[in-house]
This record gives sequence, structure tokens and C-alpha cells, in this order.
Amino acid sequence: MKKNVIVAQSGGPTAAINASLAGVINGVVDSEAYDKVFGAVHGIQGVFKRQFINLTQLTEESYSSVEFLQTTPAMYLGSCRYKMPSIEENIEAYKQIFNIFEEMNVGAFFYIGGNDSMDTTAKLSAYAKMIGSDIKIAGVPKTIDNDLVLTDHTPGFGSAAKYIASSLIEIAHDTYIYDLPSVTIVEIMGRDAGWLTAASVLARNKYNRAPQLIYLPEVPFDVDNFINDVKTEIEVSKNVVVAVSEGIRDKDGNYICAGTATNDTFGHAQLSGAGKALEYLVKEKIGVKVRSIELNILQRCAGHISSRTDLDEATKLGEFAVQFTAKGFSGFMTSIKRKSTVPYLYDIEMADVSQIANKAKSVPVEWITPEHNDVTRDVISYIKPLIQGEVSITYRDGLPVYIDIPHLTGMN
Amino acid sequence: MKKNVIVAQSGGPTAAINASLAGVINGVVDSEAYDKVFGAVHGIQGVFKRQFINLTQLTEESYSSVEFLQTTPAMYLGSCRYKMPSIEENIEAYKQIFNIFEEMNVGAFFYIGGNDSMDTTAKLSAYAKMIGSDIKIAGVPKTIDNDLVLTDHTPGFGSAAKYIASSLIEIAHDTYIYDLPSVTIVEIMGRDAGWLTAASVLARNKYNRAPQLIYLPEVPFDVDNFINDVKTEIEVSKNVVVAVSEGIRDKDGNYICAGTATNDTFGHAQLSGAGKALEYLVKEKIGVKVRSIELNILQRCAGHISSRTDLDEATKLGEFAVQFTAKGFSGFMTSIKRKSTVPYLYDIEMADVSQIANKAKSVPVEWITPEHNDVTRDVISYIKPLIQGEVSITYRDGLPVYIDIPHLTGMN
Repeated sequence: MKKNVIVAQSGGPTAAINASLAGVINGVVDSEAYDKVFGAVHGIQGVFKRQFINLTQLTEESYSSVEFLQTTPAMYLGSCRYKMPSIEENIEAYKQIFNIFEEMNVGAFFYIGGNDSMDTTAKLSAYAKMIGSDIKIAGVPKTIDNDLVLTDHTPGFGSAAKYIASSLIEIAHDTYIYDLPSVTIVEIMGRDAGWLTAASVLARNKYNRAPQLIYLPEVPFDVDNFINDVKTEIEVSKNVVVAVSEGIRDKDGNYICAGTATNDTFGHAQLSGAGKALEYLVKEKIGVKVRSIELNILQRCAGHISSRTDLDEATKLGEFAVQFTAKGFSGFMTSIKRKSTVPYLYDIEMADVSQIANKAKSVPVEWITPEHNDVTRDVISYIKPLIQGEVSITYRDGLPVYIDIPHLTGMN
Repeated sequence: MKKNVIVAQSGGPTAAINASLAGVINGVVDSEAYDKVFGAVHGIQGVFKRQFINLTQLTEESYSSVEFLQTTPAMYLGSCRYKMPSIEENIEAYKQIFNIFEEMNVGAFFYIGGNDSMDTTAKLSAYAKMIGSDIKIAGVPKTIDNDLVLTDHTPGFGSAAKYIASSLIEIAHDTYIYDLPSVTIVEIMGRDAGWLTAASVLARNKYNRAPQLIYLPEVPFDVDNFINDVKTEIEVSKNVVVAVSEGIRDKDGNYICAGTATNDTFGHAQLSGAGKALEYLVKEKIGVKVRSIELNILQRCAGHISSRTDLDEATKLGEFAVQFTAKGFSGFMTSIKRKSTVPYLYDIEMADVSQIANKAKSVPVEWITPEHNDVTRDVISYIKPLIQGEVSITYRDGLPVYIDIPHLTGMN
């Protein structure tokens, strides 16, 4: 009898994580090895609670459902922030999960997520090995932050980068209209890794130097240098756009931000307000017209301007995860190995999932200019292929159509 | 000898104001009455400074330039905030402008803008009449706020409404992922008129009730009622999205944004917006997960998701302005008269430009629910036709291509 498959999603939303889910579904449908694919609602917690959706049914209802799924932002299955305890701490949790797996005749479990989700994947995989279970455990990467190790980049990043660079072009057009000096500060997501902020450099073109200044969290932020940088740029460009990471810190490691820091489940500092803090600084020290813009969650959920390359890669990472487990592999995360930048070519490989959690990939310091206020051409070469191609979104009554999520909204 | 035409843009940017400029250019090219069309850079100030761009040349260079112009956000010619003094205050300013008009053999002047620009248009028109000049003066409306009188709606509003409703759908998908109650407050532009905030209602569909609560500046905002509304909605929807105008005021007329201050890294007292103020309030009074999002200037400059209907109307308003002046009319603003909502039909007419400035059109109070926390179906019927249709944007290297603006950015 063929085995079934369970898939779940976890962590923060991206525009590409449902494309990976579509990839897993397609992979199972195309596979000789597996029968049905069930989706656990709200991550690994959905397994504990036996909250499953029959995703095979989704493909039977209408093929277009899976197409809509591929282009729908955020998580079709919902998410959770639950991190598995260690096996030593709570072996009962593991027994419970694997009992449910056995009960449902599960041959493979796929977890689509970021760093914390790969931690869970690694732990489940270690437990399976420990008890000699034949159930395959695999991770599929996603995170807009692009900070996972052992993969060239992560799904979700390309779409976020495309949104950021496109928005910066539009913001630039908006800022150039007055014959008066102005400073516009755009705060971009990325607590520890500056990849998203770095992507703003792609907005520059033959008529537009904005963003003229780019500050990443990988190097210390110096307030006096910043003010000097802005003053110098106003002389050159008049209308200055500054791209700044939410996570910029001074040389002592203190965040440049407004408000108090609180802690989330995993002990991360909750940040907001680097942009606002710099806005007030420019107002006080330079006195020109200044505005700050927080791109906020639209940078991770603007499905209508996703990168085709990003969604295609996300789908393949899901499909290959199924194929690899069907061949008997377990304990891996599918990953992207770049073979060439021009032309852009890559392979899908497997990375040891136990080597991913609790590590982070930053922007190399040599890709940041010595003045700490810009990035080098390496950044452009690296990110450019990832934002290529547009997604054909269906519009109904003037608005983008995404897949229905009544199981999350409670409306039937 | 055929006369020339001058056109200028003024006020705040929209996604449609360049479409009106394209309309004026097309109108002149198609007209028997006029020869060349010159664009004044930075509004009426560009006339004083004799800063002109030969826009006819733009059409000769490449037809596609005008197509790119139509879909490019913000102002190709730049803007100004200069308001003409009254004729009594400074007749010399008027003499100067009309001397330049005569010098350049100008037969008509077109000003594309909002309330203040129509004030300037009305004054120039009154002066022309006073001195018996044959130069025709006309206004072409734009404003995302949709608050101009004597027109069914204004160009720029439909595209902003489409961006807002689309973003609200994407934000809704983002907020539904966790199995935890949450409140997301989306602050939308419109200090005195709630049209843009009202447009958020279009995001609702069969699986999504968000935004569940909508607060406009036309009616007093009551903090206690708001907290009760949110508490009630959390019970129904779990994940509540609140659309709120930046201009909400209490019953005494005090802005809700005032009063909440936090300290940033540099010790400044920061005054927060309406969204942030409500975020802190929900955190304090209800204690659930809460986030605020300011849609900010992207709602007026996101050219990649403009409304086709909006850009087409904006273009026609420019074209008709030229045709009306060619027929001898002056002292008008082109305006939209809605003939039917289903199917959507309208005429382009002329409104007396002296009756427009210093008046404002608000959302009718009877289109707001008695509880002051939602809008009626009248709003949906009114706005829905205005967001229909998508604009085919050219993408190059993964990013939207807009018309070059080297004359504004200083890069050649």
C-alpha cells in the first residue's frame, strides 16, 4: 500500500511559501511512491491537534486551485511559532507525532519554513533515526530575509527584493517633483541580515541615483557619518532617498530605533522605528523636508508583484523534496546551488538540515563600501537574477484573485 | 499662424496625473487649432522662470514615450506648492505671466492639479477676462483624495483605491496565518475626506471580512466605542483588520494622532500617527497581538497597479480640455459626469473653475453606518467601477519601466 504525505508551513509569511506547497502537492501527484497529501493546519501544531486538509482533493476539485495557490501570498495552511522541545526534554511529544504519522500511514513529512522550522525538521529527523523509523523528514526553505545557510538564497527573498526595488523606483519618482531639497528614509525589513535593504540598489537606473545611501545592519551605524553623508548627497542629488535596515546598530550594538524592545517566543528583539529615528535626526541636524516610510509587511505579502523566478524556484524546491524522499533520502533541506550568474543557472540539491538551524548568512562585509553607506556591484550581480520575470495574476472586479482560505478565516 | 499651448502640473503626486499630461499632448497633436505644446517645469513657477520642455518633441522622438508617460506615477513636469496671489495683491505677477504667454505665442494654458491649482486656474482666467485676452485658461483635475467638487470623482483616486483594496487583501492573507487573535491597523491617507479609507471595503470577499472595521474622518471618533468594536470583532473574526483615516478626530475635533509620544534613541519626543496611536491603545486596553501599518506614499505612486479606468479617464480629461479650448471655451475645469453605475457610463463636461477652489467633497454621512465603524453599500457601488481594469506595464530586468525624468533628477 502506498504511503501518504503530510506537509506543513511555519514561520513568517512570504509571497513564495505557497508556491513551495504547490510544489509538494505536484510532487506527490506526479510520484509513484505516494498516495495522498495532507496539509497540517498551523504548522506542526496541526499535527498534534490532528487538523488536516486533504490537499489531493484540492487538485481534484480544479487544477486552477493549485495555480492560484502558487501565486497566493502568506500561508494557505496557516503558520505557528511553536518550536519543538529537544528529545531529551520531552520525548513524549515526539512519540505523539510519530504515532499520528503511523496512524495516517505517513511515509514522509515536509516542513516549509525558515531557521526555526529547520530546527524542528532536524529534531524530527534525529528522532526518526533514533527509533529506526522509515518515515522520511525533509525541510523546504523559505524566508524573505535570505539568511539561511547552505543555500544560495531562499524562496520569498526574490519576490520581496522585486517589491522593494520596484517600490523604491516609484518612491523616487514621487520625491523628485519639488524644486526643494528633501530626504526620504525608507525602512526595510531584515533584523540581522541586510539582504532586503541591499536589494534597494536595483532601483538605480540611468536617470535615477536613488537610493543614494544604503545602510545595512552588518556594519556599525555612525550617526555623525550618516548626517555628513546626507548633507553631501543633498548637494549632488537634491532629493535624497535613504534605504535603511530596521536592524541598524551603533558600534556598541545598540539598535537605532524608537520605542522599547520586547521579546518574541524565540527571544528576538521586536524592532520598529529606525526610519522614524533617522527622520527626526535629519529634521534636527539638517532641517530640510524629511519623511520616513516603513515598507512594512507588504514587502513579504505583495503577491501581485512576485518574482516569476522566485515562485518557480520555490515550486521546484517543493517538488524535489518529494522526489528525494521517494528515493529514500531523509534529514535534508532542499537547497539552491547557483552554477552561473550570467546566464543564471542553478541545481536543486540536498543540504544536511542539522547544519542549518541557529546559523545565519549575512551580507559579506566586502560587499559593503568602506564608507558603510552603500553596497558594491557584487550585490547587484547576486540579486538581479532572482527578481526576473513577472507573475500573471488573475484580476476580478479590479482586484487580484488569490486562493480561498475559509479554513483560516472561519467564513464558509 | 497656429498658437502654441503650455501645460503644467501642480500639487501632490498621483498615479494618473501624467496620464492627463499625455491627454493634453495627444489633444494638441490631434488638434487643428494648435501647433506646439510646451511643459512648464515645476508648475506655474516654471512659467515665471521660463523653464519649458518641448513636449511635441517627445511625441516625435518615439510614440512609446507618451505611452510610458501615461503609466508613469508622480509628475513628469515636477510640481510646486505656489499659489497665485490675488490680482489686487500683485497684478505684476499676472502681467509677467501673460507677457510670457504672448512672447511664446500661447493660445491656451492648462493646469493639471487639485484644489490649489484650480484656485490658480480661476485667477488666471479672471485676469484674462479682465484684460480681454484671447488666451484660454483651463484646469484638469487630479487628486487621490477625491475631494474636488463639481466632478463625480477625480483622476488618481481610482488607482489609489485599487492599490488600497489590493493591499488590504494581501495584508488580510498575512494576518490570518496564526491561530491567535490579532489586530492590524492600517492607516490610510485622507486628512479631511474619507474616500480612500472607504475604498478599503472593496477588499472584502466571500472568504474574507477584512477590514472588519472602517473609521472615516467625516464622523467623530470615539475611543471607547473603538475598543468595544475591536473586542466584539475579535470574538467573530479572531484576526481583525482596521482601516483608519489619518485624519480621524474626536468629538471636539482633536486629531487622534496627537498625545501619544515615545522616546527614540536620540531622546526626541515623537508624535505618532493615528495608526500608531490606536496600536498602543489596543495593546493597553485589550492586550492582544497588534500591529499598525501606514500605507504611506505608495498609495499615490504605485504605478504598477494603477486602474486602467482611472488612467483612461485622466487621459480623456486632458484631451477634452484641449478640444474645449480649441472651440473657444475658457475658465473651466474638465469634469466627469457619471451617467450610470451599472453599466458604468460617463460624460466629460466643463465645470466653472471659479466654483471649485476652497470647497471640499466629503463622504456623505448617510454612507457611513450609524455605529460610525463601517460604510454602506453605496460606497461599494460608487467606487467599484473606478478600480476596474489593469495597466500593462513594461518590465525590464524585473522592474517596471517608467519614463525618464533627467530634467528632475539632474542626471543626463
